[in-house]
Amino acid sequence: MKIIVDAMGGDYAPEQIVLGALDALDADENLTVTLVGRQKDIEACLKDAGDRMSRIDILDANDVITNDDNPTMSIKLKKDSSLVKALDALMSDEEAGGIVSAGSTGAVLAGAFMKVGRIKGVSRPALAPVLPTEKGSGVVLCDCGANVECKPVNLAHFAIMASAYCTAMLGIDEPRVGLLNNGVEEHKGTPLAREAFELLKNTSGINFVGNCEARDMLSGEFEVIVADGWSGNIALKSLEGAANTVLSVIKDGVYSGGLRAKLGALFMKPVFAKVKKKMDYNAHGGACFLGINKVVIKSHGASKRKSVCASILQAKDLAERKVCEDIKRKITRYAEENKAEEV
Amino acid sequence: MKIIVDAMGGDYAPEQIVLGALDALDADENLTVTLVGRQKDIEACLKDAGDRMSRIDILDANDVITNDDNPTMSIKLKKDSSLVKALDALMSDEEAGGIVSAGSTGAVLAGAFMKVGRIKGVSRPALAPVLPTEKGSGVVLCDCGANVECKPVNLAHFAIMASAYCTAMLGIDEPRVGLLNNGVEEHKGTPLAREAFELLKNTSGINFVGNCEARDMLSGEFEVIVADGWSGNIALKSLEGAANTVLSVIKDGVYSGGLRAKLGALFMKPVFAKVKKKMDYNAHGGACFLGINKVVIKSHGASKRKSVCASILQAKDLAERKVCEDIKRKITRYAEENKAEEV
Repeated sequence: MKIIVDAMGGDYAPEQIVLGALDALDADENLTVTLVGRQKDIEACLKDAGDRMSRIDILDANDVITNDDNPTMSIKLKKDSSLVKALDALMSDEEAGGIVSAGSTGAVLAGAFMKVGRIKGVSRPALAPVLPTEKGSGVVLCDCGANVECKPVNLAHFAIMASAYCTAMLGIDEPRVGLLNNGVEEHKGTPLAREAFELLKNTSGINFVGNCEARDMLSGEFEVIVADGWSGNIALKSLEGAANTVLSVIKDGVYSGGLRAKLGALFMKPVFAKVKKKMDYNAHGGACFLGINKVVIKSHGASKRKSVCASILQAKDLAERKVCEDIKRKITRYAEENKAEEV
Repeated sequence: MKIIVDAMGGDYAPEQIVLGALDALDADENLTVTLVGRQKDIEACLKDAGDRMSRIDILDANDVITNDDNPTMSIKLKKDSSLVKALDALMSDEEAGGIVSAGSTGAVLAGAFMKVGRIKGVSRPALAPVLPTEKGSGVVLCDCGANVECKPVNLAHFAIMASAYCTAMLGIDEPRVGLLNNGVEEHKGTPLAREAFELLKNTSGINFVGNCEARDMLSGEFEVIVADGWSGNIALKSLEGAANTVLSVIKDGVYSGGLRAKLGALFMKPVFAKVKKKMDYNAHGGACFLGINKVVIKSHGASKRKSVCASILQAKDLAERKVCEDIKRKITRYAEENKAEEV
């Protein structure tokens, strides 16, 4: 199985991207990768590749799409960019199962939409990261920002896609689906939330368990949380911000807390390392762009080799488990059932 | 200055409410309180009141509004409830500067709206808690849930009201106002967010500094954050949930981490106490319901004596600083300016 890697996207590209790919090749001997980007820069990072070179292709691309570029325009115009060439390679190379990029989120989404295409029936593909939970399992949040405005049917699609993804990714059968809302009662929320609740309640093939308040997202009571992209984005970034704030306040407390605090922190080092590991939502890899014909993984912009490696292995795993085909099947069934009802 | 206290609202009523009121009387000798609720139950908590009894009135009310009651209906129908009687007392007693309740949020908002009334020009009063920040100052979030759906002009009002509140509450002149959004760039977000951005940019008398991503809410770069009530609620609860999750994961790590971790935790106890104190958003008191003719403080449902005491002192402080009058003046000015522009 081959995974296409945008070697130029992300804050630490190309070095950390290439090193992550090398780690992934070490971890999985059935993996091959195509690294897309400036050939010279990539080669400079491959000095210690050794035997792994036999499982590496380099696809030369001289341009880079940055966060400052307009996503849609840059996909159209920057034909020699690493992202566009990587997406083209994903479509033309039959062996390629998926793509990983740590570049501009907007450009990755626009590129995947335009070049790889939507699964038939999915009008709004959605971005789904896996968040850590208190119980250590993980919860899929869908959508976390691809679609600022949504209709109720989009949220039904998110639930179907994220459930299939959760099963493929975390091995959870019939994951419990919650709807992000401002209260647990059925009548709560915006008109969108209320209509989505009704729709989800009547959607077969998912395990909808009701509303999920934002404070319970990481409780472990849900394995899938659906939200419009605006609300999902606010929730995701709030969680991230609060976790960082708590850890930074603890750090400040240790620095200003004298010898006693410093000794305590030293003793607690393994605990903090475990906490950091448990709360690190990049450990599972990147966010998957669900509803696209092939596996597209958006790795965090600040990804270093460890999370790039995780994203590549994640992409291979999802491609092998045929998650896109599963989503296609389920979305088709949903469309048929709802058409049947209309008749 | 007298503060009216709903002694029956909240998970720990009446005991913790009454004890909180006694603490507040200790802290401020110019304070008097009216405790509203079942006289017998309240008196049972006042055994150790001593001299403070001279500054306590009890207003008998035999009914209680619970979280299960429909907010608007219960305000209309439960005329003998502690909340309704407390609101009536606030309006009829000239000495009364404000009210504190830890009861049902919906009922407190509905009751304040119906009984105390809106400030002229404010169509949507909004609930504003003070959140802790990394730098330890505090940030006012407005709205955190009173108005699920908003128009741009509501957000302009929130900015004006929360700025006045921030100055009265935290002593910050010209607080920096951020608009909760899914990116810092001007064109980001929903149509509401984009229109609100335009409006805030052109609103005189506030110090609007741009969009605030949810992850930066606690950074200390903003003293006021405005949002529609839906988004503000999701952000607030996400922050709360994540902070709790991090602390609970640390606790688990200590429990399962053997002697070394336990020793470390023991040494770090003062640090954790400081963190808890710093992150405790009830330390400032409760959330203020802005845009209402008198000071209305909604204390957290789980409030114990400490946060009830803080809420009562907060209510007195805000009433003395005439925050409602200040808001009234500024909203009137805003209305005049915008009317003038239309001509």
